[in-house]
Amino acid sequence: MIYSLAGFTEPANCTSLVAPFTSEPNRNMAAGFNEEKRAGKGPQSSYIINPHLDSMKEDILYHFNLGTATHDLPAMFGDVKHGMGIPSIGIMLHELIKLLHHARCTDVTIIRIGTSGGIGLNPGTVVITKQSVDATFLPQFEQIILGKKVLRSTDLDEKLSEELLQCSKKLNEFDTVIGNTMCTLDFYEGQARLDGAFCSYTEEEKQNYLEEAYTAGVRNIEMESSVFAAMCKLSGLRGAVVCVTLLDRRKGDQMTSSHDTLNDYQMRPQKLVRHYIKKQLNVV
Amino acid sequence: MIYSLAGFTEPANCTSLVAPFTSEPNRNMAAGFNEEKRAGKGPQSSYIINPHLDSMKEDILYHFNLGTATHDLPAMFGDVKHGMGIPSIGIMLHELIKLLHHARCTDVTIIRIGTSGGIGLNPGTVVITKQSVDATFLPQFEQIILGKKVLRSTDLDEKLSEELLQCSKKLNEFDTVIGNTMCTLDFYEGQARLDGAFCSYTEEEKQNYLEEAYTAGVRNIEMESSVFAAMCKLSGLRGAVVCVTLLDRRKGDQMTSSHDTLNDYQMRPQKLVRHYIKKQLNVV
Repeated sequence: MIYSLAGFTEPANCTSLVAPFTSEPNRNMAAGFNEEKRAGKGPQSSYIINPHLDSMKEDILYHFNLGTATHDLPAMFGDVKHGMGIPSIGIMLHELIKLLHHARCTDVTIIRIGTSGGIGLNPGTVVITKQSVDATFLPQFEQIILGKKVLRSTDLDEKLSEELLQCSKKLNEFDTVIGNTMCTLDFYEGQARLDGAFCSYTEEEKQNYLEEAYTAGVRNIEMESSVFAAMCKLSGLRGAVVCVTLLDRRKGDQMTSSHDTLNDYQMRPQKLVRHYIKKQLNVV
Repeated sequence: MIYSLAGFTEPANCTSLVAPFTSEPNRNMAAGFNEEKRAGKGPQSSYIINPHLDSMKEDILYHFNLGTATHDLPAMFGDVKHGMGIPSIGIMLHELIKLLHHARCTDVTIIRIGTSGGIGLNPGTVVITKQSVDATFLPQFEQIILGKKVLRSTDLDEKLSEELLQCSKKLNEFDTVIGNTMCTLDFYEGQARLDGAFCSYTEEEKQNYLEEAYTAGVRNIEMESSVFAAMCKLSGLRGAVVCVTLLDRRKGDQMTSSHDTLNDYQMRPQKLVRHYIKKQLNVV
């Protein structure tokens, strides 16, 4: 069973759990449970393009052990709004992993898809994460438990990453690379941006830091991958991170591409993952 | 000028910037910019209860230097969705502080309102934060800049906290205390919960940790106050944190109060802050 974390804005013939995780503000993709009155009553969610759903007496979400007749899904999920960053995805993953446990799911793969800032790549390049690294370029996530620091490995499934890369090559619609992903808690100072409310470093120091990151194999920067990788590793979930780069951080800090171009970029990770899921299900 | 961060679900006769920051999942309050087509065209936002707005040719948001005729507000803000935790509120504060700068605002007060888990308090008690402390109970926020740790003070405005406490006493509708607030990056292991996907400690170790926190003056736990306090302090904004406790964490980890009771609790911080703002504006 494969879940991909982040939005499909087109219907996908595959099992997918969608939830919004992007690292560039204002570029959030479709939210999974983010629409009120999703399950029938009230306005139809814009994420579903299937006229048959309305005429079904009951829709059973088999793999979650949930059904529209047996569970009040708007009451259960209607007010869920996932946010940005490690705390939000961490909370979601705790509850997703518990849901998979309660639903007795086995052999689950989850893929985080989203957006990121790139280093030394043409904007629009998709990065499949080899290792999620911290701000000192180490592949670890620091979890605080009872006030004490615990370091957790952020290794991801190498075979899955390689399969995704091959899949993208076959798709042949955009550039895709495997590289390290730096995960930060802060979008401005934490990512060496010059355009935050506070900045205590020079342009040169910023460029030096990005250069060090590049030398350490970092190809993109986002805000969720470390806890995602750590929780996949710890729980035994097969996990991958697939993020498109919206800009080259060596050349600037602000997104200057047109709205249409950014929208096109944003679709790339889900295009790739959708293709991969279809391939796994033998429907392509 | 006073902004309060978090939702008013009733109209407030005061200057308020609303955005959703709560620490207990699924208990998000009204979102400020969270509704599409907010500024006139399309469905009316549910956050506004004012029939006059529709008939106005232009609505000028004077203190932001923004207007519905001069700015395309849905395009500018329509897709903003703030999340939960330090990264989300950090991003928002960077951009809010820049907005205040561009709009040449002076003498600004901002108040974070939201929900939290309490320690040793009856559920429904409102806590005004004296100091926001980390998981080792120190009043500091760790910011990573160019890969290096920088510790920032999380001191809040004592006079403002005291004024809010006096205001609550006059309002006389619910218990309010001043205490320290622990701010964590994680809702489960980070807050010593026993009901996460992972738990490596005993009930006794959890209770001991909460007891240590209580001894250090901690009365509630949430996920945004440290970066809020640090950024207020650094930028010179007058700031306060006002959160209601939804449960006593000594007695459990899950919210067991009824939906109506939790809704009533959630309204308390905004009731208090609304009363405070009205008092400042001499309209009560």
